[in-house]
Amino acid sequence: MKRRLLLVSNSTLHGSGYLDHCQQHISSFFGKNVKRVLFVPYALHDRDAYTKTARNKFKTLGGGNTFRLLKSLYDNNVVAEIRKRVMEDGVPYMGSSAGTNVATISINTTNDMPIVFPPTFSAIGLVPFNINPHYLDPDPNSRHMGETREQRITQYHEEPDTPSVLGLREGSLLLVEGNKATLLGSTKARLFTSGKPSVEYDPGSDLSFLLSDAR
Amino acid sequence: MKRRLLLVSNSTLHGSGYLDHCQQHISSFFGKNVKRVLFVPYALHDRDAYTKTARNKFKTLGGGNTFRLLKSLYDNNVVAEIRKRVMEDGVPYMGSSAGTNVATISINTTNDMPIVFPPTFSAIGLVPFNINPHYLDPDPNSRHMGETREQRITQYHEEPDTPSVLGLREGSLLLVEGNKATLLGSTKARLFTSGKPSVEYDPGSDLSFLLSDAR
Repeated sequence: MKRRLLLVSNSTLHGSGYLDHCQQHISSFFGKNVKRVLFVPYALHDRDAYTKTARNKFKTLGGGNTFRLLKSLYDNNVVAEIRKRVMEDGVPYMGSSAGTNVATISINTTNDMPIVFPPTFSAIGLVPFNINPHYLDPDPNSRHMGETREQRITQYHEEPDTPSVLGLREGSLLLVEGNKATLLGSTKARLFTSGKPSVEYDPGSDLSFLLSDAR
Repeated sequence: MKRRLLLVSNSTLHGSGYLDHCQQHISSFFGKNVKRVLFVPYALHDRDAYTKTARNKFKTLGGGNTFRLLKSLYDNNVVAEIRKRVMEDGVPYMGSSAGTNVATISINTTNDMPIVFPPTFSAIGLVPFNINPHYLDPDPNSRHMGETREQRITQYHEEPDTPSVLGLREGSLLLVEGNKATLLGSTKARLFTSGKPSVEYDPGSDLSFLLSDAR
């Protein structure tokens, strides 16, 4: 298993610049041997402008709308190819937000608006569980009556055979190397598993167990 | 055109009880001749409990998860039947939140998490435009970096041939009688139309133009 993934919750953290919060991790993840990065601009509408921005500043990699990104990956027949290149050939994969969602088993736990209809919610499947990027704790002062993030994930787990969901708060990222997974960044992550109480993990935690058993 | 719809943004408003904020409108909408209400409990997991709650208290009508509701409507083959009964036979339809989403042309502008995969995002189509329930203005004090509601709707309008989206804030509802649509409730609504600036409408506004031309 050659997979190497860097799955980032969000590209911008409040009070700092684009990808500042994980710049060191990005540098050490790609290392000195990576000369070229394939950037997938499908998640935003203006792909040329988005690619130019990413090229210039190496920013918002993989962000945008998850539904648009997944649909375009299928429309362009690259889902299986990306999976093969990452899982068998060891090509490093980095995603942030939408790019993190599509790397997992499905996009069932994205926060995005379903602006386009993909052929399935199944995603690239580089890991056998789900991630909720931009995970948000309930705001006790809010007067808004929409469901909290935790309530939404709980609704997901009412469905049969649903995998665990790792809630990556802004500032969090997950590094996967083969069968080892490590939580990095500045914030804790919350793991939701169907039928069990949710668990908080500190930065630095070994989450490799998620790779062998997603339930 | 016999359609009569009451489309509510949300069932509970902060600081008041279930459906309190629109109780008078519900009473006058159904009137004294309606003896029975068909309640569709598909949007929550425990349908028996949900139905019991609704029967007892007439609350959270049509709320829950939009994807789950729409998928169950298709699984049970009732989408076309509901459309016919409402549009041709004049059966009144009331929905709140998820029940409002599925009444429109599509669920492309729901806020819910895509926990199940429906066969299409096309919905019952009782009106030829979209609604975003629980519409939320940007919070200038927020440190969260997820997209604002307005940014999400703007992304939707980057797609071709997308209809207008009526952002119904909590406390808002839309009354449709035949070809007449009126904004009711305590808060303004914001209308997003592709390629045009968004427009605010006060409670009491006549929005009938949305029924004849959704673009």
